Amino acid sequence: MMRPDDAIRLLVDHARPVESTESVPLKDALGRILAGPVISGVDVPPADNSAMDGYAFRHGDLPPSGGRLPVSGRIPAGQAPGDLAPGSAVRIFTGAEIPAGADTVVMQEHCRSEDGAVFIETLPPRGAHIRPRGQDIRRDQELLSAGPRLRAQELGLLASVGLGEVTVRRRLRVAVVSNGDELVEPGHPLARGQIYNSNRYLLTGLLRDWGFEPMDLGIARDEPKAIAEALSGAASLADVILSSGGVSVGEEDHVKAVVESLGGLDLWKIAMKPGKPLAFGRVGDTPFLGLPGNPASALVTALVIARPFLFACQGRADTLPASVPMPAAFDRPGGSRQEYLRVRIRPRGLELHPNQSSGVLLSSSWGDGLAVQPPDRDVRAGDALDFCSWAAYR
Amino acid sequence: MMRPDDAIRLLVDHARPVESTESVPLKDALGRILAGPVISGVDVPPADNSAMDGYAFRHGDLPPSGGRLPVSGRIPAGQAPGDLAPGSAVRIFTGAEIPAGADTVVMQEHCRSEDGAVFIETLPPRGAHIRPRGQDIRRDQELLSAGPRLRAQELGLLASVGLGEVTVRRRLRVAVVSNGDELVEPGHPLARGQIYNSNRYLLTGLLRDWGFEPMDLGIARDEPKAIAEALSGAASLADVILSSGGVSVGEEDHVKAVVESLGGLDLWKIAMKPGKPLAFGRVGDTPFLGLPGNPASALVTALVIARPFLFACQGRADTLPASVPMPAAFDRPGGSRQEYLRVRIRPRGLELHPNQSSGVLLSSSWGDGLAVQPPDRDVRAGDALDFCSWAAYR
Repeated sequence: MMRPDDAIRLLVDHARPVESTESVPLKDALGRILAGPVISGVDVPPADNSAMDGYAFRHGDLPPSGGRLPVSGRIPAGQAPGDLAPGSAVRIFTGAEIPAGADTVVMQEHCRSEDGAVFIETLPPRGAHIRPRGQDIRRDQELLSAGPRLRAQELGLLASVGLGEVTVRRRLRVAVVSNGDELVEPGHPLARGQIYNSNRYLLTGLLRDWGFEPMDLGIARDEPKAIAEALSGAASLADVILSSGGVSVGEEDHVKAVVESLGGLDLWKIAMKPGKPLAFGRVGDTPFLGLPGNPASALVTALVIARPFLFACQGRADTLPASVPMPAAFDRPGGSRQEYLRVRIRPRGLELHPNQSSGVLLSSSWGDGLAVQPPDRDVRAGDALDFCSWAAYR
Repeated sequence: MMRPDDAIRLLVDHARPVESTESVPLKDALGRILAGPVISGVDVPPADNSAMDGYAFRHGDLPPSGGRLPVSGRIPAGQAPGDLAPGSAVRIFTGAEIPAGADTVVMQEHCRSEDGAVFIETLPPRGAHIRPRGQDIRRDQELLSAGPRLRAQELGLLASVGLGEVTVRRRLRVAVVSNGDELVEPGHPLARGQIYNSNRYLLTGLLRDWGFEPMDLGIARDEPKAIAEALSGAASLADVILSSGGVSVGEEDHVKAVVESLGGLDLWKIAMKPGKPLAFGRVGDTPFLGLPGNPASALVTALVIARPFLFACQGRADTLPASVPMPAAFDRPGGSRQEYLRVRIRPRGLELHPNQSSGVLLSSSWGDGLAVQPPDRDVRAGDALDFCSWAAYR
């Protein structure tokens, strides 16, 4: 059996990132993957500006005890200031540009104005309340490297240096195929022997959440010619084919035979639970990944094994999710495989869902994420486990 | 000054959840808010089925030492089985329905077949390898209560009980307005005194991420009549108006005056950093929330203060994000306000971004989330802080 980390490494090593890029308006770039580093073309702030509402003046014009200066102008935010008239002050507002000749701002609370002049009662230090040009971001500074997924704060950051468009990688196209003659689409009645197809909705949901473009091929019926046509078509359009069910070790299935005939297929046994059977191969040159058919197994292998591979195919920098150590609030004997436990966060630690079966998604909906129990290790309450929230798998 | 928790509670108490609902196909329901509880109409599995590839038979037909049974049929998954012929076995596959009359499955690895019969070498216990009807989900069981945001696993869960459509709340409509005559849209040149509008992209990005429908009103210019028209129009279309900049205590701004004239406005000082000034009021009957203009302040107040209010307006059950205790890897003196520190996760604990200024989004892009430093509390390396990842704020 293969360790999960080894399976992930093997898959990521096989990933060929999407090379084609496109330029999209910044407002449409949420969730997209930056194609290259972004260098700022401007200073932020673009000029020295005032951090306060008050008066701007030249520090050398007043003695340490303060004094009176005539007010020669008014600079609201957004207006180009003229030069400061020598020996005067200007009324200035938060964010407004400091006029040439001024080097200090006094807060309005520390002065009083009368008859076109201002009395500065407490002389602030030279340079006070001025945010210097380039304090936050310098021209030519690298703001972002290639590969991150753009979140709201990155959109704000890119906007702050004036970028109206951004170059991102084309969305990864992932074809999804469900295997099993017993499967029926939701919304239709069940005949005897049939069950509803849940993996299609689970997998296309995950793919959408990850910012990819799912291509839904529906349920593959047991007709080799039709399967071969569907898979060949998918291989020419998609970057990756993702399948669930029907390709595990020992199962009879036409999909397996068809993939073998159109490219190649390896069947892996991964030392994880839920999970274990995984198929990796190709249809023509297009990678083919076959997940187990049980819903909880499909979810866990999609998150733990398929996700890093797909992220690498998309060219994302962060292929592995951020886990944090959290104390267990339960005892549990270890097994021979690494277990991905459906747990939720409680004040006393991680609580275990009583049903860790691979057949059902209820525990995944109930819980906050997955905790990892390494092979052959008993868990005692208080032990720290690596925990990864559902949110961190996005 | 108001404590952040009190501000959140006040706002959530004022929230009126969106009442109108719509029915959407399951495949389009990702990220939507379930309008009511979902009760399963079916058992999962719908009938007793086989957990293995093997043979189904009646346990009483064989002695404890095992024996030979003629094979009277073959049941692949997806086919309705006939009744078991007395004194026989049927070949059965994983997921296939158990025929009436059979009560036990033997794995194919524990028997051998020859000449239309099967030799069962090890008699399994009665009921072995059968997943009973309703084991995972029972008919009439409540699967989900109202209010959660639907993720991939909930789509899979709803599909598994055959639901092709789901009733969700209408998306919350949030109008976004940016205030400041110094603001210029990205993609255009900056004149002297101007800066780029970043909050528009930051806030509409957050709103999209949260599954809301942003209504982008652009930059409000200092013309009271135009502002009044824009805000009145927004109030008639949107559920909430979200504004940034220009409405903090002591600032001169037409938006503030216009909101006061069209409804009402309270200016709050919240004991948080970044943040502090917040405006809450209404335009007509539509709630108006005014965030600070500094980008990091706008981000933090949007996540910490606006998010729970907006989630409550959308009718989400989980208004507060899940935080986890994490050890600090830094020392830091406390201040009079509660601080929301931009930090990232490192093996030794949370690392602090050196620039915690409210002017810049770089630290938010660099980091993994926010750690809370309570007021008047010094942090020493090793102290546990409440940490909330960016992902948990989604």
